[in-house]
Amino acid sequence: MYLEKISTNNDLKSLSTDELNSLSDEIRHYLLKKLSEHGGHIGPNLGFVEPTIALHYVFNSPSDKFVFDVSHQSYTHKILTGRKEAFMFPDKYDDVSGYTEPSESAHDFFTIGHTSTSVSLACGLAKARDVKGDKENIIAVIGDGSLSGGEAFEGLNNAAELGTNMIIIVNDNQMSIAENAGGMYRNLKELRDSNGNAPCNFFKAMGLDYRYVADGNNITDLIKALNEVKDCAHPVVVHINTLKGKGYAPAEAHKEAYHWGFPFDIATGESKVKFDDDYSDFFANFILDKIKTDPAVVAITSATPIIIGFTPELRKLAGKHFVDVGIAEEHAVAFASGIAKNGGKPFYGVYSTFIQRAYDQLSQDLAINNNPAVINVFMGSLAGMTDVTHLGFFDIPLISNIPNIVYLAPTCKEEYLAMLEWSYLQNSHPVVIRVPSNVVISGKTFDTDYNILNKYQIDRNGSKIAILALGGFYQLGETVADALKENHGIDATLINPRFITGTDNEMLEMLKANHSVVITLEDGVLDGGFGEKISRYYGNSDMKVLNFGAKKEFVDRFDVNKFFADNHLTVPQIVADTIQLL
Amino acid sequence: MYLEKISTNNDLKSLSTDELNSLSDEIRHYLLKKLSEHGGHIGPNLGFVEPTIALHYVFNSPSDKFVFDVSHQSYTHKILTGRKEAFMFPDKYDDVSGYTEPSESAHDFFTIGHTSTSVSLACGLAKARDVKGDKENIIAVIGDGSLSGGEAFEGLNNAAELGTNMIIIVNDNQMSIAENAGGMYRNLKELRDSNGNAPCNFFKAMGLDYRYVADGNNITDLIKALNEVKDCAHPVVVHINTLKGKGYAPAEAHKEAYHWGFPFDIATGESKVKFDDDYSDFFANFILDKIKTDPAVVAITSATPIIIGFTPELRKLAGKHFVDVGIAEEHAVAFASGIAKNGGKPFYGVYSTFIQRAYDQLSQDLAINNNPAVINVFMGSLAGMTDVTHLGFFDIPLISNIPNIVYLAPTCKEEYLAMLEWSYLQNSHPVVIRVPSNVVISGKTFDTDYNILNKYQIDRNGSKIAILALGGFYQLGETVADALKENHGIDATLINPRFITGTDNEMLEMLKANHSVVITLEDGVLDGGFGEKISRYYGNSDMKVLNFGAKKEFVDRFDVNKFFADNHLTVPQIVADTIQLL
Repeated sequence: MYLEKISTNNDLKSLSTDELNSLSDEIRHYLLKKLSEHGGHIGPNLGFVEPTIALHYVFNSPSDKFVFDVSHQSYTHKILTGRKEAFMFPDKYDDVSGYTEPSESAHDFFTIGHTSTSVSLACGLAKARDVKGDKENIIAVIGDGSLSGGEAFEGLNNAAELGTNMIIIVNDNQMSIAENAGGMYRNLKELRDSNGNAPCNFFKAMGLDYRYVADGNNITDLIKALNEVKDCAHPVVVHINTLKGKGYAPAEAHKEAYHWGFPFDIATGESKVKFDDDYSDFFANFILDKIKTDPAVVAITSATPIIIGFTPELRKLAGKHFVDVGIAEEHAVAFASGIAKNGGKPFYGVYSTFIQRAYDQLSQDLAINNNPAVINVFMGSLAGMTDVTHLGFFDIPLISNIPNIVYLAPTCKEEYLAMLEWSYLQNSHPVVIRVPSNVVISGKTFDTDYNILNKYQIDRNGSKIAILALGGFYQLGETVADALKENHGIDATLINPRFITGTDNEMLEMLKANHSVVITLEDGVLDGGFGEKISRYYGNSDMKVLNFGAKKEFVDRFDVNKFFADNHLTVPQIVADTIQLL
Repeated sequence: MYLEKISTNNDLKSLSTDELNSLSDEIRHYLLKKLSEHGGHIGPNLGFVEPTIALHYVFNSPSDKFVFDVSHQSYTHKILTGRKEAFMFPDKYDDVSGYTEPSESAHDFFTIGHTSTSVSLACGLAKARDVKGDKENIIAVIGDGSLSGGEAFEGLNNAAELGTNMIIIVNDNQMSIAENAGGMYRNLKELRDSNGNAPCNFFKAMGLDYRYVADGNNITDLIKALNEVKDCAHPVVVHINTLKGKGYAPAEAHKEAYHWGFPFDIATGESKVKFDDDYSDFFANFILDKIKTDPAVVAITSATPIIIGFTPELRKLAGKHFVDVGIAEEHAVAFASGIAKNGGKPFYGVYSTFIQRAYDQLSQDLAINNNPAVINVFMGSLAGMTDVTHLGFFDIPLISNIPNIVYLAPTCKEEYLAMLEWSYLQNSHPVVIRVPSNVVISGKTFDTDYNILNKYQIDRNGSKIAILALGGFYQLGETVADALKENHGIDATLINPRFITGTDNEMLEMLKANHSVVITLEDGVLDGGFGEKISRYYGNSDMKVLNFGAKKEFVDRFDVNKFFADNHLTVPQIVADTIQLL
C-alpha cells in the first residue's frame, strides 16, 4: 500500500507512474468507503483523484498555491496533504470539513463552499505575488458547471488582463450538479470533440492561453501537460476531460444522483436515508398542477433542481415550463422579473445561502420594477445546513430590508400552499416566501388573501406577554406559550406575523392595552432581522421587548442543540428571560 | 426640420435615408444642447443616435420590445417615443429621468440604472413570450463595457440555451466609463479588425449566432443588418462598431471625461461646475503616498476610477498598484480577499449603490475567510445620488449584518484618514469604511487605533438625552445637541459611534445612569440599520429610544430637503420628537 507512505504531498514525488496509479486506486477505495458510510460529494471527488495526484506531483504546495472552486473535488487534496486519517478511519471522519479549510492545513488558502469564486481568489493571490516580487505558481481548479456563474467569468476576464502566471485547470466532467445549462457548453463539447483544436474557443476568446488533455484521468498525460505549463509567465487554461463518479459504476451511470449523497450501500448504490415528502415536493406539485391549466407558469432553478423537487422525470414532464439557468442566481432573479413583466408567472426556487448572490438583482431588477415574480427561499433556518459556507441565517436581513418586496413566512404546509396560491393569483408585488426547513402539517385552513400587507394574525388571545413567532419558529412560540401557561399560569398572546417585511402597527398598538412584554422569535440571525423592527417600533413606549434569534457570527459544523442553548433559544431559556421582564 | 414631425416612432418609417440622416443631426443637436445645459450621459448618447433610429425604423416598439442596458444610451429612444419635448425645451428637461422608466412610456419596460442586466431581463421577456405563444422580437442593447459584468455573461449563456428569438445589439464603442479592462476585449478588437470574421469569436463560443456592422453609426448599414435578423427564430448578436461621443469633438477626443458630465460650455468643452478636493482625492492621495514605501499596496476599482480619485494621470503614476477589474464588483471583492491572503494590502473603492452586487462575496469570499482587505464605500448617504437606481441608502443593512466585517463610519476628513491608516496597519479584520458624502474638515485629531472593536466615543458629556450620531450624520447630531441646549436648556450627551457593526454595551449600559432617552441618527434606511441594534439593546430596559433615518422605500429624483422633512430628519423635528419622550 502506497498511501501508508504518503504523509505529505512531497512523498508523492518519488513514486513511479505505476505507483501513482496504484495510489489512485487506494485513494478511490477509501473515498468510496467514507462516502458510503458518511455521505458527502461523491461524483466530483471520484472523478478528480488522478488530476489531484498529478497536480501535487508537478507543483510544490503550499508554496505553489491551489484554489479549489466550491471545494467539491478537494478530498484527494486533503488526503495528500496530511489529512488522510480523516478518510481512512471512521472515528476520524469528522476531523475535516467537506470543503477546503485554512484552519486544517497550510495547503488550503480559503474556506470555499459557494461556486465560481476560484479564479477571482486566485487572481488576488497572483496579484499579491506580483507586487511583492515572488515567483510561485497559482493554480485555480474549476469545474465546467462552476463556469456558468458570473463571478467565474469576471475572474477569467481579469486573469487575462493581469497577464502573469496563473494556471486554470478546467475540470470538465460534462455535468453541473444536474446537466449543464447554457450556450457555452456547446463550445466545451466542440473543444472536446476536436481534441481541443476547434478554432472558436471560449477560453482563447477570453484572452487566455489554452491546452487540452483528452483523458483527464490519465496521470501520465496530466503530468506531461502540467509540466509544460508550470512556471508559465502568463495565464493558461488546462482543459481536462474527466469522468464524474469514475470507478463506481452507479455514480458513473447516475451522475446527478451521485453528485452529493447521504450514506449508501456500496453493493446496490441505494441510499441508507429515506425522506418523506417535503416542501420541495409541495413546490413541484404546485407548479405541475398549475401548468396543466396555465401555460404562463415557469419554474426556475439555478442548477439545484432537487431543492424545488424537480427530479429528472418531473423536469421532462414540465418541459418548457421548467428552466435551469445554470449556477446563475443573478440571472435567475432578473429572468424572473422579465417573465413577470411580460405576463408570465415565474416561480424561482433557491437555497437561502445561494440567494445571497442576487441582492442587487432582487433590489434593482426586481423590486424597483415591482414585477410580480415569486421566489421561494429554501433552508433559511438556524437548524438547516451547518457548514459555515452554507448557513441559512442571513436571508431575512438580506431580503426583508429591500423596499417593495413582500417577504412571507409560512408556519406549516397548509399556510405555505395558501401563500403560494396568493403569490400566483396576485399581480402587484414581488413576493418571496421563506419555506420552513421542517415539514409541519397543521391540519389548519388558511385564507389565500394576503392583499392587506403586514397584517399579523392572532392565534391565541391572552394578556401580559405577546409572542410574535415567525415562520419556522411558530411551533417554538406555541411551546413557549404552553410553558408560560403551565409553569406560570400566564395566558400569553400568540401571534403569527406572516409578513417579515413590515410591522402591523395597528396590532402592535393594540397590544399595549394589556401586555407589558412582547417577545419575537425568528429562525435566523438577529442583526437586521424581524425582531429589531419590533424593538424599534416600541422604542418610544413602555413596552418591554426581547428579540430571540441567533447572534451575528459565523459558526461551522455546529451541534444544533448546543447552538440553540448558546443563543438562549431553548424553551426554558426563553420562558425564563421573558418572565424576568414582567 | 424632421424632428417636428416625429410624434411617435411610427412616424420614422416613412422617412428616406437622407431624411433619417438629417433627423440624426437634429437629434444630436438637441442632445448636445440639453447635455451642455443640464448634464447627463454625454458620450454614450451621442454615439447611439443612428443605431436608435435604425432600431425604431426596423422594429415595431412597443410590441417589439427594447431593453437598454444601464440606459446610458436611451435618450434618442426617449426622443423617438413621445418624449422629445424633454430634450428640446429647457423647462421640460426634468420631465424625464436619465434612465428608461416604464412610468414615462409604454416603450420602456424596466427602470434600469445598473449595468449588465439587459440580456437577463430580455431573456425573461422572451421566455414569457414563448410560453404564451406570442411572436414579437425581443431586443437587448448592451455596451461593450457592460459585457464585463458577470450578470451579462449569465444572460448570454442562458439566451443561447433558450434558443428562440432574441436580438442582442452589442454597442461596441471601445470604452467602458474609462478604458475597458479584461481579456475579452482583445477578442472584440480581433473581431473589429477582421470585419467580424475572426474564427475565434466570444459570442459564437457562447452559442450565439453573430453578425458584424463595421460602421455602427451608418443608418443604411444598420437598417440592412437589422432587417436580416428581424424575426429570427434563434438568438443572434449584432456587433456594431460605434463612436462614443460622436459629433462633438471634445467628447470624441476625451471619452472618459465626457462619459457623464455636469453642464459644460459647448464651445470650449469646459465644465461649468468646479469641485474642491473631496474624499475621492483623499483616498487617492493616501494610496499614492503608501505605495512610495510599500509595494504590497494595491488600489482596486470596478470601472469607476474617478470615485477613488484615480484620474488617468494618477493611474499611470500608480502603475501596477492600480487595477481596474471592469464592471465586476463580485470579482473585485474576491480579488481583494485573495490579495490580502497572500500578504498584499488591497484597497477597493466602490459606490454604495454598486457594492450591492457583491453581498455574497463580502460574506463568503471575504468575511468567512476573515482576510484583512479594505473596502471604501462612497456615496452611502440619503443626500447623495437621487436617481432611484443609484440610491446610497442600503449599504448599512447590507454590510453591517455580516459577521467578521468591521464597518467604520468616519465623521470628517481627519477621522477618515485615521481609519484608513488603521485599516492599513491592522491584519485582523476585513474593514469597510463608509466615506461620508460631504467633506467636513474638523481640525480635530484622531487616534488611529481601532483595535478594540465597537468602542464608541463620547464627545460631549451630558445627561437626560444621548445622541448617537453616526458617520455623515455626526454634524446633524451636533446641531441637534446645540438646539436642545439653546431651546430647552438640556446638555445632551453626544456620541460618535465610529463602528456601525456592533454595540458598545458598556457605554450603552452606563448611559442608563443619567439618561432616559437615546436617539440614533444614521444617514441611511432605518430597516436593518444601526439604530435598530440600539433599540434591540435597550428593549428590556426603561430607556426610551428613537431611531432617525429614512423609512424603507424607493424614491426617485427627490428633493432632498423635502425628503428629510418627510422622514423627520430636520433639526426642529428631531428635537421635538425627542423632547416629547422626556
